[in-house]
Amino acid sequence: MLSLPDAARSLRSGESSLDVYLGEVLETIAAVEPTIHSLLPEPGRADRLRREAAALQRAYPRPAERPPLFGVVVGVKDIFHVDGLPTAAGSRLPPEALAGPEAKSVRRLRRAGVLVLGKTVTTEFAYFAPGPTRNPRNPEHTPGGSSSGSAAAVAAGLCPLALGTQTIGSIVRPASFCGVVGFKPSFRRVPSEGVFPLAPSLDHVGFFTRDASGAAYAAAVLCDGWKPEAVPPAPVLAVPVGPYLDRAEDVARAHFERALDALRGAGFDVRQVAVMADFDEVVARHQVILAAEAAQVHAELFRSFGHLYHDQTARLVSEGQRISRQELAAARDGQALFRRQIQSAMEESGVHLWLAPSTVGPAPRGLESTGDPILNLPWTQAGLPTMSLPCGLDGDGLPLGLQLVAGWYQDERLAAWAPRIEAVVTPARLAIPGTGG
Amino acid sequence: MLSLPDAARSLRSGESSLDVYLGEVLETIAAVEPTIHSLLPEPGRADRLRREAAALQRAYPRPAERPPLFGVVVGVKDIFHVDGLPTAAGSRLPPEALAGPEAKSVRRLRRAGVLVLGKTVTTEFAYFAPGPTRNPRNPEHTPGGSSSGSAAAVAAGLCPLALGTQTIGSIVRPASFCGVVGFKPSFRRVPSEGVFPLAPSLDHVGFFTRDASGAAYAAAVLCDGWKPEAVPPAPVLAVPVGPYLDRAEDVARAHFERALDALRGAGFDVRQVAVMADFDEVVARHQVILAAEAAQVHAELFRSFGHLYHDQTARLVSEGQRISRQELAAARDGQALFRRQIQSAMEESGVHLWLAPSTVGPAPRGLESTGDPILNLPWTQAGLPTMSLPCGLDGDGLPLGLQLVAGWYQDERLAAWAPRIEAVVTPARLAIPGTGG
Repeated sequence: MLSLPDAARSLRSGESSLDVYLGEVLETIAAVEPTIHSLLPEPGRADRLRREAAALQRAYPRPAERPPLFGVVVGVKDIFHVDGLPTAAGSRLPPEALAGPEAKSVRRLRRAGVLVLGKTVTTEFAYFAPGPTRNPRNPEHTPGGSSSGSAAAVAAGLCPLALGTQTIGSIVRPASFCGVVGFKPSFRRVPSEGVFPLAPSLDHVGFFTRDASGAAYAAAVLCDGWKPEAVPPAPVLAVPVGPYLDRAEDVARAHFERALDALRGAGFDVRQVAVMADFDEVVARHQVILAAEAAQVHAELFRSFGHLYHDQTARLVSEGQRISRQELAAARDGQALFRRQIQSAMEESGVHLWLAPSTVGPAPRGLESTGDPILNLPWTQAGLPTMSLPCGLDGDGLPLGLQLVAGWYQDERLAAWAPRIEAVVTPARLAIPGTGG
Repeated sequence: MLSLPDAARSLRSGESSLDVYLGEVLETIAAVEPTIHSLLPEPGRADRLRREAAALQRAYPRPAERPPLFGVVVGVKDIFHVDGLPTAAGSRLPPEALAGPEAKSVRRLRRAGVLVLGKTVTTEFAYFAPGPTRNPRNPEHTPGGSSSGSAAAVAAGLCPLALGTQTIGSIVRPASFCGVVGFKPSFRRVPSEGVFPLAPSLDHVGFFTRDASGAAYAAAVLCDGWKPEAVPPAPVLAVPVGPYLDRAEDVARAHFERALDALRGAGFDVRQVAVMADFDEVVARHQVILAAEAAQVHAELFRSFGHLYHDQTARLVSEGQRISRQELAAARDGQALFRRQIQSAMEESGVHLWLAPSTVGPAPRGLESTGDPILNLPWTQAGLPTMSLPCGLDGDGLPLGLQLVAGWYQDERLAAWAPRIEAVVTPARLAIPGTGG
């Protein structure tokens, strides 16, 4: 499977035939899906894709006029509404009860020429109750969540791009566990209309690709008003020392320190910046907003279909029902202040990018838990653009990730900086066990 | 919606156009599914049905040659494998893990000319964890289970026939709650190949129709070696007095007594026969077989996907894992003996049909529970042919049912007797609240 820019270039130019490409995609599905279960089943998927491909070819007979993602297959997390495919949001609720108009992000991708490969598995309502997806790097381990299927589908080579969302750590965590790139642009930089919400003040739309160049290519299509910045000055990198970083487990911390050494060796200016002395409060505030907003989103559905909710989701809704308006309002004020604090810390210390381990450790064994998103939580709360880069493997061959966080709406800069950092920390294609670890 | 024989007659003769019929079916789906949720979503359902209808019309241009169920739409419980549609068995497991060749019963129906309308909602693995389906008679009440969607689809007029299964009371109970006919022929009289099992020694394939004539019409297609018996002698009816019947609640019991009075008034010989003094043992034995066999069926799936099981199903599997081979063998011996005891009781007392309330009461309010199958359990354990007939409404307009149980392999007789009893106990079309109650 080619990276996104390569796949797009080859399909637009006609160097790759769309029919042959689709044939390969369907063969890959047949080969890997019985193990990884990243896609929701869709009777007649192959016929639909061939019909849509034929229509696309009729619409754009001349290579020169083809849109940027002509013919590229894309996975879509099953909380995005897609015309013609039901939305179950990883739940047992009837899709009729969740239906809505097609997501804006999906429409943008369609206008750019993509073929929707299918819906990808999500945890229930993008919270914690897991689906059947397994980690393509080792099927005994979780792929992470909540965008489990999107991360796994890209990692398994089913598609070079897949949509996801992050409310705590649902893009960065599975990207890291599966060894792919996950990009969560600034809050609402990708429109969230048509995505079934978990907690609207925290929900971010983002996506998965094989590499940082793919993330930049997709961002140009998906983000509002993207203005690519070709050669920004070298970033000053910041290590967010304090109680936040202390949450990383030993393996991830040691791995992170080696990545920092490599970056210093490559000439990057890496500084230590103390932040989030009040990290426990940041976490508590996140849970207040999440639970209270989820309870609002689910109020009516929970009354009708409460018996179909997984315990984990039901507990969240119940917890949220007990939170007062005043508490929620105070938490949202705290969220706005927190973003300004992080921005100020960057300005005062003259840094451009926070670096941190993407996860507290590699993907846990078993499928019961999708792992701990704690290291992603503050950047989501602050709404800052965040990208996870593959950063080698642990001793068991499981991927680890490096999280890059830029300032508010510095998405273009992050996308431009990421390939330079990737060149240092991501071993070639992450295909050879033991590299980079 | 016509009854099954009328719909079939009209479609075979060409009096109804298949296109018009399908149009009406699709309109009914659009009208009722947003409330009752009996069918699993299927993108492209309308297109598929129109394609299949066209193929059927090409295959049988001449009315005289048309098979018995030409063009009739049929709902299929989502534990039957159907080519082209995934099997999720009401679970969150990936359909690839449950897939198998098309069910023999479905193939029989297809050879008889049916169009598969779609998969119908089942409780998880046909045990107790409910799906989203609501009772078409009152959406605040359960439709019963496990064949929830099949019973509701027939009751709501989506299809005149739907396949189900019964391992405790999964056909008779939802038929009764939804006010339709449910027929569970003798054990293995309808082949169970291609149906995802719950407990193979107890699993029965059966179906739902609007009325008893429909049940006989479908049985002729679905049952092995069906030899219709046009005019059997009048049956002697038996009331199974003792601890079994005492399980019926007051409303159901009073309703049952009125049905017996009506039958006596219509000239039927109704006798009291004391049976199942050891009813608690019958129930305990059922649970041993059910749990032990479910644990065997799910052994491998539970190891791979245990985290996706509903607690109720997981507890059943765990319970079954603790049952020894000896205990299971003893329970199966007890099952065989029990069938002989019931048969002997019928022969000794000269009775042909057991009558009992189909359920302990009307459909409970709420969707958390699919209701109590206890009054169905012994007849399932004995493997005897059982039919539930609508038998009027309670004071709130909820249906109640009358259960008829014939001797081993007396399916043809039961099908012939049922319309005579229906004529006495089932109020015309059950459409007018308060009738028969």
